[in-house]
Amino acid sequence: MNIEGKNQVIEAIKNDSTINKIIVDKNYATRKDDVISLAKKGKIRIEFMPKKGMDEISKTGHHQGYIAQTIDFVYSEIEDILNSAKEKDHTPFVVLLDGIEDPHNLGAIIRTCECAGVDGIVIPKVRACQVNETVVRTSAGAISNMKIARVTNLKTAIDFLKENGLWIYVAETGGENIYTQNLTGPIAVVIGSEGNGVKQSLKAYCDGILTLPLHGSVNSLNASCASAIVVYEILRQREEKI
Amino acid sequence: MNIEGKNQVIEAIKNDSTINKIIVDKNYATRKDDVISLAKKGKIRIEFMPKKGMDEISKTGHHQGYIAQTIDFVYSEIEDILNSAKEKDHTPFVVLLDGIEDPHNLGAIIRTCECAGVDGIVIPKVRACQVNETVVRTSAGAISNMKIARVTNLKTAIDFLKENGLWIYVAETGGENIYTQNLTGPIAVVIGSEGNGVKQSLKAYCDGILTLPLHGSVNSLNASCASAIVVYEILRQREEKI
Repeated sequence: MNIEGKNQVIEAIKNDSTINKIIVDKNYATRKDDVISLAKKGKIRIEFMPKKGMDEISKTGHHQGYIAQTIDFVYSEIEDILNSAKEKDHTPFVVLLDGIEDPHNLGAIIRTCECAGVDGIVIPKVRACQVNETVVRTSAGAISNMKIARVTNLKTAIDFLKENGLWIYVAETGGENIYTQNLTGPIAVVIGSEGNGVKQSLKAYCDGILTLPLHGSVNSLNASCASAIVVYEILRQREEKI
Repeated sequence: MNIEGKNQVIEAIKNDSTINKIIVDKNYATRKDDVISLAKKGKIRIEFMPKKGMDEISKTGHHQGYIAQTIDFVYSEIEDILNSAKEKDHTPFVVLLDGIEDPHNLGAIIRTCECAGVDGIVIPKVRACQVNETVVRTSAGAISNMKIARVTNLKTAIDFLKENGLWIYVAETGGENIYTQNLTGPIAVVIGSEGNGVKQSLKAYCDGILTLPLHGSVNSLNASCASAIVVYEILRQREEKI
């Protein structure tokens, strides 16, 4: 998808991280330019192109020297995730990510969740990796079969899931050994960020903390590996119950 | 550690992949050069430096325009892994990697294994990622607490482990559901490469194939995520047994 025009591209950078690259008129390459500095700040790829080339790829004919190319990923609403579980007569199984920053981790988590039959993933709109090209690639195609909802506030999302009968667990150190917990009911599990884990305010808000046993000198697992173990432990318990 | 001199550096490239970077006299940058082509082939970082600078960092004074800087990782022998388990009175738990190529995956697997109390990891000397700088970084320090043995032939390693009473399992599709298998004994589990899984010849050679349930449209998990689930399932069964 193309987003064309200076203000449109600026808005896209500010609101959305599904931008693959930004194409800018090569005459603007050496001048001080809002779009270029915003794109650099957001670590978005910039390609400079002669105006003639841009006219050719423009869909609107009004690009003003700025075209953002986005990937075609459509986010879901959190309601869609629960509705989809209901339609399939599936005990709801939702994963919330509290600030995963590395696109490789996000892609791998999406892939694991898809393999485990998770109904959907909830990510925050800010201070977290959004679905971008690397995520799509790392997910190995799983992204096209996974509902991902973006929310302004994870707490509000948790409230909504609680109201709908889900138990909310946090995967973190310092809680109950995951293998002693019954995880067969409708469940949402919150996974923390690579550096900081799950925010304290969210932890206090949940029904329980699930902790993986650690027997080494390293105190934590890689975020995507920890997610994989937790998600598959829930799957194991559900399948054993059947 | 520095490896200095043309033949020494060539040998190091051929035998060892713990090379961080190769420093080459900048006068050689434009000529046809064996070291440079070998390094490029092995995707090793090359830095060109004036002779004077090389003289300063040289430890031997006989660099001939070639210095390889290696990271200080010392591999173990497969015997060391079993001895270490014996000393700790630990039921042996070994992970064999059949051709993991991505250093991020290798680093994450080492980290998971260290967290789970695995006694050691066995990797092939060729056609597989060796311990390099990226692996060390991705392992988050776990590398310094993990025995890693490099072997010429995984089959011979499996023979040795079998002789020492270990059961050999392969983590792959098309086998028994992992959750129905008793994995509490002395065990070695073979994890396949990112693209090709475990070689057919090895599969036939093992005691069983452990398969993770897959409920999505994607047919496989990321290698480090799959390893994490398998390794922690073995840990779970062992802890439940205690």
